[in-house]
Amino acid sequence: MNGNPAAIPGQTAHRYDLRVYYEDTDAGGIVYHANYLRFAERARTEALRALGIPHAVLVRDHHRMFVVRRVKLDYLRPARLDEPLSVLTDPRALGAASIRLRQDIVGVEGVCAAALIDLACVSTETGRPARIPPAWRDALKGWEQAAPPGPEPLGGAAGEDGTKGGSAAGD
Amino acid sequence: MNGNPAAIPGQTAHRYDLRVYYEDTDAGGIVYHANYLRFAERARTEALRALGIPHAVLVRDHHRMFVVRRVKLDYLRPARLDEPLSVLTDPRALGAASIRLRQDIVGVEGVCAAALIDLACVSTETGRPARIPPAWRDALKGWEQAAPPGPEPLGGAAGEDGTKGGSAAGD
Amino acid sequence: MNGNPAAIPGQTAHRYDLRVYYEDTDAGGIVYHANYLRFAERARTEALRALGIPHAVLVRDHHRMFVVRRVKLDYLRPARLDEPLSVLTDPRALGAASIRLRQDIVGVEGVCAAALIDLACVSTETGRPARIPPAWRDALKGWEQAAPPGPEPLGGAAGEDGTKGGSAAGD
Amino acid sequence: MNGNPAAIPGQTAHRYDLRVYYEDTDAGGIVYHANYLRFAERARTEALRALGIPHAVLVRDHHRMFVVRRVKLDYLRPARLDEPLSVLTDPRALGAASIRLRQDIVGVEGVCAAALIDLACVSTETGRPARIPPAWRDALKGWEQAAPPGPEPLGGAAGEDGTKGGSAAGD
Repeated sequence: MNGNPAAIPGQTAHRYDLRVYYEDTDAGGIVYHANYLRFAERARTEALRALGIPHAVLVRDHHRMFVVRRVKLDYLRPARLDEPLSVLTDPRALGAASIRLRQDIVGVEGVCAAALIDLACVSTETGRPARIPPAWRDALKGWEQAAPPGPEPLGGAAGEDGTKGGSAAGD
Repeated sequence: MNGNPAAIPGQTAHRYDLRVYYEDTDAGGIVYHANYLRFAERARTEALRALGIPHAVLVRDHHRMFVVRRVKLDYLRPARLDEPLSVLTDPRALGAASIRLRQDIVGVEGVCAAALIDLACVSTETGRPARIPPAWRDALKGWEQAAPPGPEPLGGAAGEDGTKGGSAAGD
Repeated sequence: MNGNPAAIPGQTAHRYDLRVYYEDTDAGGIVYHANYLRFAERARTEALRALGIPHAVLVRDHHRMFVVRRVKLDYLRPARLDEPLSVLTDPRALGAASIRLRQDIVGVEGVCAAALIDLACVSTETGRPARIPPAWRDALKGWEQAAPPGPEPLGGAAGEDGTKGGSAAGD
Repeated sequence: MNGNPAAIPGQTAHRYDLRVYYEDTDAGGIVYHANYLRFAERARTEALRALGIPHAVLVRDHHRMFVVRRVKLDYLRPARLDEPLSVLTDPRALGAASIRLRQDIVGVEGVCAAALIDLACVSTETGRPARIPPAWRDALKGWEQAAPPGPEPLGGAAGEDGTKGGSAAGD
C-alpha cells in the first residue's frame, strides 16, 4: 500500500491535497463515509487537468463525459477534522470506453480509504457508452504505462479481504 | 434483481422511500454518485429502527456503533431530479462484530444502484471492533433468517460484472 | 414564533417532516449549519407539489425556475442526530417574478432555525427574471392570502435581533 | 463591493481559493445555493489558521468553539462547474463573545455570493456563550482594525436590495 508515495520507486500516482473541514465530518467525529467519494472525484478532476486532458473540455468539445460505473471502497482508518489528506490516483486498466483507477486517500497515519473506481465514457446526449477520444486515450495510455506493474489488491494487506478466492454470499 | 419487490415471494427487504431533490443532483442532471451512500445510510438507520434496535440506543446504552468498513457499489442507471426512489435493504451475512447488507436503490425504471455494505460494530470509545450486543444480534439474526437464501451477485444479472471469475488488476 | 403550529389559529404553513441522519451532522455533534438550507429546499419543493404547482412542471412546460436570491437565516438552537424536524413554510410576499417565504425548521424543543428566503422566477434559458406563470401565481396568491397577516420579524421574539432599529455595519 | 480586491487600497481580506467540482453543483448546472456556506466555512477556518489562532486549538485548549448564529446571503450570479472561486473574508464587528464577518465568494465575472456571518463563541460543554480567549481576541482585533472603515451594505451596490429603507413583511 502506498501510504508513503515517496518510498515507492517510479511512483506515478497523481497527488491531490485537501484538508478536512466541518462539512466533511459527522456526529461520530470523523469524515462521513460518503465524502471520500467527493474527495476522490476532486482528485480525478485535477488528475485529468494535470494530464492536459481536462474533463470540461471532453464535455464541451466531444460531448462525452466520464461517469462512475462501479466503486469498491475499503475504509481502513478514520480521518478527522482538520487532518490534511492526500488523494493518490493511479490508472489500473484502460479500455476503449472505460478506465479503472486506484485511488487512495491518505492521512497523517496512513491510508484512510482505498478505492477502485471504474469509469465509463458516455455520450452526454444519449448516456450510452462512447469511445474515449484519441487525445484523452493517448494521455491516459501514457499515464497507465508509467504506472507500476502488477495487480495490487484493494485493501492492501493480504488476507484483509475475506471474500477473496471463492467469495461467498453476495460478493 | 429485485426491482419489483412485490414480485418476490418471501421478500424481507426493508423498504425506505425518498425523493430526489436538487441537493442530490449534479451538473450532469443526475444524482451525484456519492449521494447513493447517503440514501443507503438513511435506509439502514430506518431499518434498524423498524427492527426495534435503533442505532441511537446502541450508541447511548452500549457505547458501540456500526461503521462502514467496505462498500461495493454498482451504478446501473441514473436517477433524476424529482424521481421517487426506494432503498431495499437485506441482510447478507452476520458475524460477531459485523454485518453485511445488500442495498438496492430502485427508481421508476429499475435499480439505479446496487450496493454491498460491510458494517463493523466498534466501541465508541476506542474505535476497535466490539461484539454486537445480544438484543441487536437476535433481531439481526431473525431478519437474516427470514431473508431469501443463496448468494446473489452484486450487479444482478449474470455476466454484468465483467470482473468475475478471474478478475484482473486490482479487483 | 410558531414552534407549535397547532396552537396557531388559521395556520396555513405547509409542513414537511424529516429526520436528522449522520449525513446531516458534523463533528460538533449537531446539524451542520448549511444543511438547514437543504431541508428548506426539500420543504419548498413539497409545498409547491402540495399546492398543485410542482416545480418540475414549471421547468419542463414553462422553461422557468425559482432560484434563491437571498437568504436570512437565524440559528436558534442546535438540532441533533436522530431528531425529528418539521419545516414550516409560509408565503410572505408575492411579486410578479419573485416570492418571499418564511421557513422555520422546528425540532423537539422549538425552532432550530428560522429563515426568510427570497426566490426569483427566472428563465431556464437566459437566467433572467421572468414572470411567474398564471397557474403558479394564482396558487401562490391563494396561499399568501390565507396566511396570517402582519409582519413577523425574523428570529421571532422581539429584541432577539440586536441589529434592528439602527443596525450597524453591513446589516 | 470588492469584486476586485486588488483595486481596494489597504485591502485586508483573507483570500481562500477553491474550484467548483461536480459535488458542488446541482441539476440546474450551477453551484447549489447551500454550498456557498460550505465554501465560506472552509475560508473562515483557513483565515483563523492564517491569523495564528486555529479553530482546532480553540476547541482543544479552551473548550470553546465558534458557531454560526446568523447568516445573510445574497446570490448575485451563478458559479459554474470548474470555475475558480475566491472567498474574501473580512471582519466587520468584534464583540466579547461574537464576531461578524463579511464573506464574498468571487468568480471569474464578479461576486457570486455575498454573505454576512455572525459567529458566537460558545462553550463546547454547555453550548452557552463564552468569552473569546485573549489570544484569539487580540488577533481578531488586529485584523478588524486593519480592515477598511465604514459600513458596507450587504448586496453591494445601492438599490440592489429592494427591501432597504422601510422593508416590509418579515425582513
